[in-house]
Amino acid sequence: MQAKKVFNAMSPYTPGKQIEDVKKEYGLTKIVKLASNENPFGYSKKVKEAIPSMLDHLEIYPDGNATLLRNKLSTHLNVSADQLVFGCGSDEIVEIISRSYLEEGTNTITAWPTFPQYRHCAKIEGADVKEVPLKNNGDHDLAGMLAEVDENTRVIWLCSPNNPTGNLIQRNEMEDFLNECPKDILVVLDEAYYEYINKATNPNTIDLLEKYSNVIVLRTFSKAYGLANLRVGYGIASKEIATLLNITRGPFNTTSISQMSAIHALEDQDFIKYSYEQNIENKSYFKREMESLGLECYESEANFLFVKLPTSGDQLFEHLLSKGYIVRSGEALGHPNGVRITIGTKEQMTELSQLIKEYLSAVQTTS
Amino acid sequence: MQAKKVFNAMSPYTPGKQIEDVKKEYGLTKIVKLASNENPFGYSKKVKEAIPSMLDHLEIYPDGNATLLRNKLSTHLNVSADQLVFGCGSDEIVEIISRSYLEEGTNTITAWPTFPQYRHCAKIEGADVKEVPLKNNGDHDLAGMLAEVDENTRVIWLCSPNNPTGNLIQRNEMEDFLNECPKDILVVLDEAYYEYINKATNPNTIDLLEKYSNVIVLRTFSKAYGLANLRVGYGIASKEIATLLNITRGPFNTTSISQMSAIHALEDQDFIKYSYEQNIENKSYFKREMESLGLECYESEANFLFVKLPTSGDQLFEHLLSKGYIVRSGEALGHPNGVRITIGTKEQMTELSQLIKEYLSAVQTTS
Repeated sequence: MQAKKVFNAMSPYTPGKQIEDVKKEYGLTKIVKLASNENPFGYSKKVKEAIPSMLDHLEIYPDGNATLLRNKLSTHLNVSADQLVFGCGSDEIVEIISRSYLEEGTNTITAWPTFPQYRHCAKIEGADVKEVPLKNNGDHDLAGMLAEVDENTRVIWLCSPNNPTGNLIQRNEMEDFLNECPKDILVVLDEAYYEYINKATNPNTIDLLEKYSNVIVLRTFSKAYGLANLRVGYGIASKEIATLLNITRGPFNTTSISQMSAIHALEDQDFIKYSYEQNIENKSYFKREMESLGLECYESEANFLFVKLPTSGDQLFEHLLSKGYIVRSGEALGHPNGVRITIGTKEQMTELSQLIKEYLSAVQTTS
Repeated sequence: MQAKKVFNAMSPYTPGKQIEDVKKEYGLTKIVKLASNENPFGYSKKVKEAIPSMLDHLEIYPDGNATLLRNKLSTHLNVSADQLVFGCGSDEIVEIISRSYLEEGTNTITAWPTFPQYRHCAKIEGADVKEVPLKNNGDHDLAGMLAEVDENTRVIWLCSPNNPTGNLIQRNEMEDFLNECPKDILVVLDEAYYEYINKATNPNTIDLLEKYSNVIVLRTFSKAYGLANLRVGYGIASKEIATLLNITRGPFNTTSISQMSAIHALEDQDFIKYSYEQNIENKSYFKREMESLGLECYESEANFLFVKLPTSGDQLFEHLLSKGYIVRSGEALGHPNGVRITIGTKEQMTELSQLIKEYLSAVQTTS
């Protein structure tokens, strides 16, 4: 079989370790997973209570248009219902955008390191991927990204807060960028961690859509809403862009349980508020702890911190794994000397800080 | 924005009517949906009983590898676990195959009419789609399809039983075709309706994979297993093909509820047996009824019949809709003078036969 040539240089996504596997491998009973930026407080009880009432007709195809969720979300966001496109996580929106706009002879621009699915999906479509290194402080090099634009550029990906560093693109920088960027290039503003952004920064970006018709904002129910398993993400854009993406979208790409759960999750804003407040507090605590150990972190507006290390991220990752904490090594994320750690509960971050402290002492003693 | 040129000639998928919409539109209380080949007996009670125990950690990403389902299914099918690829319905496997093998400058061959997603996904990838009309009796014109092969052909789609006609490609025809087909072309054997094929025809095709390394078989939990809403389909192929498709596959494309439900569904083969037997009986009854009205049907090995009409399919569709029966007009399926009707319960097929009889009398009286 002759697959696309790009597959010669590609390998499957390596997901974070599964909890059950780690238990077996290390003979542990308690595992704390702080690897995939999941919500440590779970998800809304209202969703859990509602699901058993959703099981009457699973033999019937879901509403591919996700009409009820669409209407609910359009009210919540104050956008028109036809400006929305739903995906199996915002991952799938990345895929749908790539399939719609990218092909051989075109190129796309991303930061690096950033969420690797932009590159992955673009490469599968045969597009050239131009990766512009983050600035030293972890910020997007927006001027550097603009300098890479040429007549074949179709899509630019901005991840804000950026995964894995957590840096937010500030509003004024974003507007300057959009003013400079040619209007026929689609700018994807991936805000998977939107609900965690410090409210003091006035993080809403939806109003940009009115001024810049070439922007699509991606958000998800997988992070703060705690529904990673149910796979619902969405894009918000002009009606024209959303219509086009809905042509590419698989006709039945989210389950009814997922759609209805997302509605119930949206209705429980108290849960989001609690998750937000706890995250701010525990992130701040953990950052201070890391700094007291002489470790620097990027300025994160998400529910994770990227901790820079004097050693390889893999080493600390392995050490913490043996103690029952799963974090994400920077090696897998394009940033070898560090680990990305999801902000958990206060208790978890306290225990983790202690484990990292012990690790550093051991490393310093042996070196 | 410059989307791929192909979008100039494309429009979004129009799904079958939603039950609630039809109720409102026609002021009806009872609606019978026989439009999307869903299982009229619902789904296994064992699945329904099990789902409430799956809700503990929906904030955690699913196992993208679907390991438990993978192992269960590999035993059930007697294939190696690494020969499987899972999708959000087998729809998504069609998408993944297209993204992996098709691009501008390549072509792909399908029958027509057939499942329209082959064409849709191929076109999005920029491939040329060669459509070979079915024979008059609804069979694939396999010789005609082979005659269309050239050096740029990458994928050939065989839908068996074919949607919307229901015809099965016989084993000997399939083998003749595979013997003639160049070995570097991927042959997709879409068996979404596999569980409904008459057992007397010895329908298993998995053994073909050993002899023909260029074959992938697609199956689904959406039809006989009655889990259309949970979106789980799969492909079975050589390890090499499956590995490549798993690179293209989104990292978390099925929910844990879906994966675990599919396992419970697999364990309830009594439900499949009952669904199979009822389908054979009710299909046979309904076909006789149609024939007694002078209407011809294709020979269907699926859970639907395509009924040829002296009038447009839209007309009968609209009539039945007003009576609370949703069927699928052939207009939307590339075969204007007919309707595709899912085989429901005996009671439903009896009532539907009567409604069609009344319709035909009315048409004959007015013409």
